[in-house]
Amino acid sequence: MRAAHRVLGIDPGSHRTGWGIVERRGNSLGLVACGTISPDAKLPLAARLGAIADALREICARERPDAASVETVFHSVNARAALVLGQARGAAFAALGASLPVFEYGPGEIKRAVTGNGRAAKEQVGKMVGILLGGAPPGDEHACDALAAAICHLHRWPNGGIR
Amino acid sequence: MRAAHRVLGIDPGSHRTGWGIVERRGNSLGLVACGTISPDAKLPLAARLGAIADALREICARERPDAASVETVFHSVNARAALVLGQARGAAFAALGASLPVFEYGPGEIKRAVTGNGRAAKEQVGKMVGILLGGAPPGDEHACDALAAAICHLHRWPNGGIR
Repeated sequence: MRAAHRVLGIDPGSHRTGWGIVERRGNSLGLVACGTISPDAKLPLAARLGAIADALREICARERPDAASVETVFHSVNARAALVLGQARGAAFAALGASLPVFEYGPGEIKRAVTGNGRAAKEQVGKMVGILLGGAPPGDEHACDALAAAICHLHRWPNGGIR
Repeated sequence: MRAAHRVLGIDPGSHRTGWGIVERRGNSLGLVACGTISPDAKLPLAARLGAIADALREICARERPDAASVETVFHSVNARAALVLGQARGAAFAALGASLPVFEYGPGEIKRAVTGNGRAAKEQVGKMVGILLGGAPPGDEHACDALAAAICHLHRWPNGGIR
């Protein structure tokens, strides 16, 4: 098992997919890059998912993360919402899964890794993401959620961890 | 709008994804190729979905379909099943959506296009797929469902149809 120094977090959505790359720098963490992929809303679903997958593949080719991290889905979500979210997750997994190990963490585990509190409010998570990465929190909530997932993986595996 | 002569049907699943390509040959239809993508079951989900997307991209590069066709999801499915199915559909859409128009048809519409009866039994659909394509039905049920979706698109748009 070799250390994961650079982790791509993703927050999948069929209209907006957040992403953020965090790397270990000695005893602290640093922000490499982050953003939100927003395909043309007028495109049909399959074209939007294709554009998201293409963008994620480009990001991976450019930034070369060692692993990816994503939030597990709540089980209480209804069938229609689960289908929509599943499709966005599937597109992200399809883009990354053949080249990177993808890890999943529950929402409570991610909040705890970032704030010390598994029930922290969204604003508190955003604020701590900014503090941990040595700067202002990223403006976009999807990029912020993606960075939180990446931070969680780096905390969970203090010496890295790639299957 | 130009005619879709060659249609890729898909039956998405995270363990087995069926596919089948049908083309218009004068007044009849012909089977180009079909099969089932079965990634190693021991692989984690993201790696399986990555392998399925890669295989679908290879099939498209080789067979050059004009459009893709897939069955719409039942709305009565439970949240857990919807998430799993959504992920498989998302992987397929991610592989195809940037390069092909993807059409969706309800299960009743597909059965009606193939057998004339929207409530036909699965065996009847398989038998008619074989007859319409001038040969024995494909052995694998996933490939057969994929071919039925492709046939439905070619029937629905007798003069073709690409967005």
